[in-house]
Amino acid sequence: MLTRIDHVGIACHDLAEKIEFYEAEFGLSVVSREINEEQGVHEAMLHVADAPAGSSYVQLVQPLHPDTPVGRFLARRGEGLHHVAYGVTDITAALATIGGRGIRLLDKRPRHGSMGASIAFLHPRDVGGVLTELVQAP
Amino acid sequence: MLTRIDHVGIACHDLAEKIEFYEAEFGLSVVSREINEEQGVHEAMLHVADAPAGSSYVQLVQPLHPDTPVGRFLARRGEGLHHVAYGVTDITAALATIGGRGIRLLDKRPRHGSMGASIAFLHPRDVGGVLTELVQAP
Repeated sequence: MLTRIDHVGIACHDLAEKIEFYEAEFGLSVVSREINEEQGVHEAMLHVADAPAGSSYVQLVQPLHPDTPVGRFLARRGEGLHHVAYGVTDITAALATIGGRGIRLLDKRPRHGSMGASIAFLHPRDVGGVLTELVQAP
Repeated sequence: MLTRIDHVGIACHDLAEKIEFYEAEFGLSVVSREINEEQGVHEAMLHVADAPAGSSYVQLVQPLHPDTPVGRFLARRGEGLHHVAYGVTDITAALATIGGRGIRLLDKRPRHGSMGASIAFLHPRDVGGVLTELVQAP
């Protein structure tokens, strides 16, 4: 079902500062910057590697306001790893399978993610404390 | 410098239970189970995908004792994402470069990781709260 690790999502207070850090220290390059009002984040995708099943990225996310999921995460736990996203070839089928087994879906239908992808989040309480995202590339 | 996302490390209380979960819900397969006394963990690597630069995995880690880094992580934050590991081609060179820029190294020299890899951890306080591991495949 999972084709790759699409990205790791990292929550931060200052997106520009963290982009500069990952570029300078690890040689990564930003391939996309977006504001996602629905998710309440300003985000950047930094390219790590290509593979037959699709590329993988570090996603840096800064909350647009404190009263957003990522804003509350930062207030509670500080900067750090926020979620992991796996590639799937058919997100609608994957959600039907996973939801049918009793894992709660934070998104019952796919919504818009970074770079035109269709994405959905699974409830971390049903995935061993891990906020887990599925990504179908466009 | 980074060639891929090698794995995401997930801390858990019950390794057998979590292996069963990832196999049943996401179709992953265990390719290695090891006890690493030095790191104080019982761990399993579950294969996600192959790529030219190397494979990627979900790594499940259960502490051998409460008084270990992962045991203290679980007591403080509960189950969930623990670290991210990136592939590098030359870990000694990578550590020299990164350490030379002032990022504190938890391992000044590479040590033994999963499946014969050479690994080293960077201090999370110097990487925006993210416990970051470098991995050179054997």
